[in-house]
Amino acid sequence: MKNISKETISQMDKIEKLNLINSCTGFKSANLIATKSIEGNTNVAIFSSVTHLGSSPSLIGFIVRPTTVPRDTYKNIMETGYFTVNHITIDMIADAHHTSANYDSGISEFAKTNLEEEYKEGFNVPFVKGSPVQLYCKYVNEYIIKENDTIHIIASIEHVFFDEALEHKDGWLQLDKGNIVALNGADGYFLPKLIDRFQYARQNVPTKSFKKDKE
Amino acid sequence: MKNISKETISQMDKIEKLNLINSCTGFKSANLIATKSIEGNTNVAIFSSVTHLGSSPSLIGFIVRPTTVPRDTYKNIMETGYFTVNHITIDMIADAHHTSANYDSGISEFAKTNLEEEYKEGFNVPFVKGSPVQLYCKYVNEYIIKENDTIHIIASIEHVFFDEALEHKDGWLQLDKGNIVALNGADGYFLPKLIDRFQYARQNVPTKSFKKDKE
Repeated sequence: MKNISKETISQMDKIEKLNLINSCTGFKSANLIATKSIEGNTNVAIFSSVTHLGSSPSLIGFIVRPTTVPRDTYKNIMETGYFTVNHITIDMIADAHHTSANYDSGISEFAKTNLEEEYKEGFNVPFVKGSPVQLYCKYVNEYIIKENDTIHIIASIEHVFFDEALEHKDGWLQLDKGNIVALNGADGYFLPKLIDRFQYARQNVPTKSFKKDKE
Repeated sequence: MKNISKETISQMDKIEKLNLINSCTGFKSANLIATKSIEGNTNVAIFSSVTHLGSSPSLIGFIVRPTTVPRDTYKNIMETGYFTVNHITIDMIADAHHTSANYDSGISEFAKTNLEEEYKEGFNVPFVKGSPVQLYCKYVNEYIIKENDTIHIIASIEHVFFDEALEHKDGWLQLDKGNIVALNGADGYFLPKLIDRFQYARQNVPTKSFKKDKE
C-alpha cells in the first residue's frame, strides 16, 4: 500500500491532486441537473454529488461551487426554485461530460450537445430526454460549507419519473436495467452490474441474499 | 415512464418508500467507517453518503442520522476526532452489509463479522484489512440539516493509503482494479467496470477519450 500524507497532497500539482482526491472517496452518482432561467434560457450540467438525505421527507442534497462551472445551475434554481435530476446512461456519457466545459452564462449545453430537452405536461423545467430516472425537485434550503466556500443545496423530491423496467415490487429501482453509469473521479465513466442484494441486516443473523427478488 | 408524486410517495409503506427514494438518486459510494472509542472499543459501519467536497483543501462529507444506527460511529468520532474510510470490495459485501444490523452500543461489528481490524504504525484508529483504498480522516466541522435532523460531517483527508495497482500517473485511482463496489439503494451491491475516461471538457471541442491512459 502506498501512503500519501496531507503534506504530500498539498504539494502535488493541481491536476494530480484533483484526480487523487476526487477518486479516493469511491464511486459517485452521475446526474445531469437541468434548469431554466426566469428569461427562459435552459441549462444542463453534470453533477456527481447528488446524495440521498432521507426518505421521510424525501430529501436530496448536492454541492455547488459558486466560483466555478456550473454557475447557471445555481442562478436558475435561485430564480425559479425548481430543477430536474436526470440519470446518465451509457449512450450519453460523452455529451454529459461535455456539459462540464466552461461556456459563457446563458449558453445552453442542450444547444452544444446531442442531449435533448424533454418537457412534461405541467412542468416548466426541462428534463433530459431518454434518461430512465428523472426527479423533479424543489429547492428547500442551503448550507454554506465555510471550510471551502461550497454550498450544500437541500431539495425535496416532488416527482419521481422512471422507466417501469427498473422497478421492483418493493419500490427498489434496479439501475443497471437502465444502463445507468457511475463516476470514478472527475472523468471516469463506469457501468455497474448487480452482484447481490441483501435483506435487512439483523444482529447475530448471517446476511441473507434477496435472490428471489433479483429475477 | 411511471410518474410518482410527492403525495403518493408520502402514502407509501415505509419500506417501499425507503427503497424508492434510496435508489432514485443514482449509484452511491460503499464505505466502511471504522472508529475507536476513548475506552478502546472499536466499531465499523457501512456508509453510502461519503462525498468528495473539494481537493484544496482535501475535504469529504458524510451524513449521520443520530437517532438510528450507527450511533457509535458518531460518538467515537466526537471522542477521538479521527476515523478511517475503507472501500468495500466484492469479497466483503455480505459482512459489510451486516454492519448495518442494530447491535448494542459498545459491541464491535469487527467481532460479529469476518471483517478484520488493521493497525498501521503511528495510527490509533483501525483500518479495515484488505480494503484497497483507505483514508485516515480528521473531524473538522458539522452542519445540522434541520429539514430532517441529520448531521453533515465535514472531515479532512490526512492520509490516503491505496493499492499501487489502482494508481495512474496523473493521480487517478481506477477503482475497478480493486474490485470495489457501489451501492444502489440500501441493499443492492454492484460491481462497476470502466467504460471510458474523458479529457478535460473544453467549449466547442468534442469530448476526447483518455484511451492512452486506460491501459
